[in-house]
Amino acid sequence: MDEEGAGLRSQGAGQKIKDKRQKTKDSKMDSKALSNLYRDELLNNVMPFWLEKSQDNLHGGYFTCLDRQGRVFDTDKFVWLQGREVWMFSMLYNNLDKNPEWLKCAVQGGEFLKKYGHDGKLNWYFSLTREGKPIVEPYNIFSYTFATMAFGQLSKATGNTEHADIARKTFDIILARMDNPKGKWDKAYPGTRTLKNFALPMILCNLALEIEHLLEPEYLRKTIDPRIHEVMDVFYRPELGLVVETLTAGNELSDTFEGRVLNPGHAIEAMWFIMDLGVRLGKPELIEKAAKIAVQMTEYGWDKKHGGILYFLDMKGHPPQQLEWDQKLWWVHIEALISMAKGYQLTGSQDCLMWFEVLHEYTWEHFKDKEYPEWYGYLNRQGEVLLPLKGGKWKGCFHVPRGLYQVWKTLGKI
Amino acid sequence: MDEEGAGLRSQGAGQKIKDKRQKTKDSKMDSKALSNLYRDELLNNVMPFWLEKSQDNLHGGYFTCLDRQGRVFDTDKFVWLQGREVWMFSMLYNNLDKNPEWLKCAVQGGEFLKKYGHDGKLNWYFSLTREGKPIVEPYNIFSYTFATMAFGQLSKATGNTEHADIARKTFDIILARMDNPKGKWDKAYPGTRTLKNFALPMILCNLALEIEHLLEPEYLRKTIDPRIHEVMDVFYRPELGLVVETLTAGNELSDTFEGRVLNPGHAIEAMWFIMDLGVRLGKPELIEKAAKIAVQMTEYGWDKKHGGILYFLDMKGHPPQQLEWDQKLWWVHIEALISMAKGYQLTGSQDCLMWFEVLHEYTWEHFKDKEYPEWYGYLNRQGEVLLPLKGGKWKGCFHVPRGLYQVWKTLGKI
Repeated sequence: MDEEGAGLRSQGAGQKIKDKRQKTKDSKMDSKALSNLYRDELLNNVMPFWLEKSQDNLHGGYFTCLDRQGRVFDTDKFVWLQGREVWMFSMLYNNLDKNPEWLKCAVQGGEFLKKYGHDGKLNWYFSLTREGKPIVEPYNIFSYTFATMAFGQLSKATGNTEHADIARKTFDIILARMDNPKGKWDKAYPGTRTLKNFALPMILCNLALEIEHLLEPEYLRKTIDPRIHEVMDVFYRPELGLVVETLTAGNELSDTFEGRVLNPGHAIEAMWFIMDLGVRLGKPELIEKAAKIAVQMTEYGWDKKHGGILYFLDMKGHPPQQLEWDQKLWWVHIEALISMAKGYQLTGSQDCLMWFEVLHEYTWEHFKDKEYPEWYGYLNRQGEVLLPLKGGKWKGCFHVPRGLYQVWKTLGKI
Repeated sequence: MDEEGAGLRSQGAGQKIKDKRQKTKDSKMDSKALSNLYRDELLNNVMPFWLEKSQDNLHGGYFTCLDRQGRVFDTDKFVWLQGREVWMFSMLYNNLDKNPEWLKCAVQGGEFLKKYGHDGKLNWYFSLTREGKPIVEPYNIFSYTFATMAFGQLSKATGNTEHADIARKTFDIILARMDNPKGKWDKAYPGTRTLKNFALPMILCNLALEIEHLLEPEYLRKTIDPRIHEVMDVFYRPELGLVVETLTAGNELSDTFEGRVLNPGHAIEAMWFIMDLGVRLGKPELIEKAAKIAVQMTEYGWDKKHGGILYFLDMKGHPPQQLEWDQKLWWVHIEALISMAKGYQLTGSQDCLMWFEVLHEYTWEHFKDKEYPEWYGYLNRQGEVLLPLKGGKWKGCFHVPRGLYQVWKTLGKI
């Protein structure tokens, strides 16, 4: 919100940073060494942390509220994070190494979710007690999306048709509830201001590929094409060069708090989902466009004063609602690393390479804990640790390991 | 969350600050000059700002989203803030000066609220469009409490029985909904973890005196006694010396995110409501206890590293859920000034005097905008402006002017 910050953003933080970097070093990335760095961090630091510290050996499922050293500080179980950890261990088991400890960890979490995570009709609660009693009702559609991801990957690992059924049926429920995802818990008065959000089409772009093995090709296509259109042609506004978070039901910009807000990390993350779809569907022009948008959003969100990507911005420069707007969050930076790595690997974009290097430097310097395993999640604007946790209500076994895996594999292809 | 901060809080920030202050100056406050300072700021700076900048002359009601210079940046109307501004102008008209501009401003806001603020059955929406169409459903009980305050004071100013009826009937609805304030929008799964919050009994302590003129003495007494008990004997935990925000239905501490969180500003504000009740009911022991608790919460919440009172803390020192935990908010500091002024005036407490001086220095230095009217609302931990707004979704014509009025009048009695 300071004038300097806003000014630099609008004048193109990218060019200024590029000039600065070209003065200090030549961009000849050693992609092999970097790829190994991400691999080692994943396999020797981050995954052992979650395997050892997060499993609840008494009741099943995972603790995610873990302090700097991995000690449990709260035992509530959040369905987003339970599902994400099942997914993470299953995915690595499926794609990397048939490590029986990983499978056992994924299966016990999946069984806990299957037994306690929903109401018997696959309506997924938001949170549970340690023992699995529901605390918060199934108001949040993303509990469903992460359950789908979890059981989709788990079914690949186990070959268990029950797991596959849960994924497929939950996916159908999500599609059926797309127009009213909050159901009876929606507090919007009907008819006055109907808004739609970027998050659901964005997640569906990723989810469809995640459970492709469970879907008919025709059904997949029918589901995925309109979502790509929404992300790239509706929520992306070429006149602004920005991806917005909220639009009116008629696809117009809304001059309201919700309509003005930008979440650069969210938009940048979506762009690697789109690049993956571009690869899968054989659409190089889609990949090119996604890489370009990812760079634009990174330039827009970059904090020229203190470095790092700001969490929320108002597109008109007004004060955003979110008091945490200037904080630096782990997932924003890790998802941006993935997008820049993929953008560079797939298109050769020098902007992607430059931003990868800038983000790599910032992220490893500020988010990695040099004394204890796993990474910090929440920094203040200055880049200092705001909360010393390794996991909490929203940070679990997901963005850090998924990002390390994705960057490792992407750089390995260069 | 830094170890230094936590350590200093538990070792008694008060003593350390006291030692430091006694080295630099002798505490002989010129209460007359200070009282005038608060009066002048209220009458010459803050009230003219709201009178000139916030009224919507086209549709009625008030704009509250005002930038540093008072320009409207968003036109949505939030029922909390509409009610609070009606209250503020009515209260000053009733207690200070029969200024016809103040009355006109209060009446037009009250008429807007009467017409558009509720569903026809006094269920108060949370927010409205500029024109008065409902945006957010009546899920929030505090929309009702601020409507009651508004129409209670407005009825004194206008003598209009319709205004009095709205206040009285809305008050009855609040009491009837005390056990389920969120109604059908409550996302808690029934029966697993029933929690109760400090906010409602706390506000009722203030509200009952606000509309005393509309209530039978017996009904007032029956309403107020259990609320004082809850605030002072239930949410105040003598074993901790702290007021907690959330308890189990059985009045036990809850080792959960909600149960561990402390909101020092909230607790400190409640203590001047209790002191006012102590004066009204002639209970000096209640006043003494409230002044003591207010000092304890101020010491606990004081940020020894950067000054100011922290927004949220976890009583076990764990990371709180609230990412804004370390920010410095205007209302916290202004409410604390009121409590310290009243504590000193009513009991002669030297701790209250010392903290009044510390808070006065911090608040005027950091929250007052020296270039443009009204005060900043949101600072980062370091005390720098986080959002340059003078009003928004939560900051309106309320805490700053009410605080200036209360401190002016309280210091004037010394």
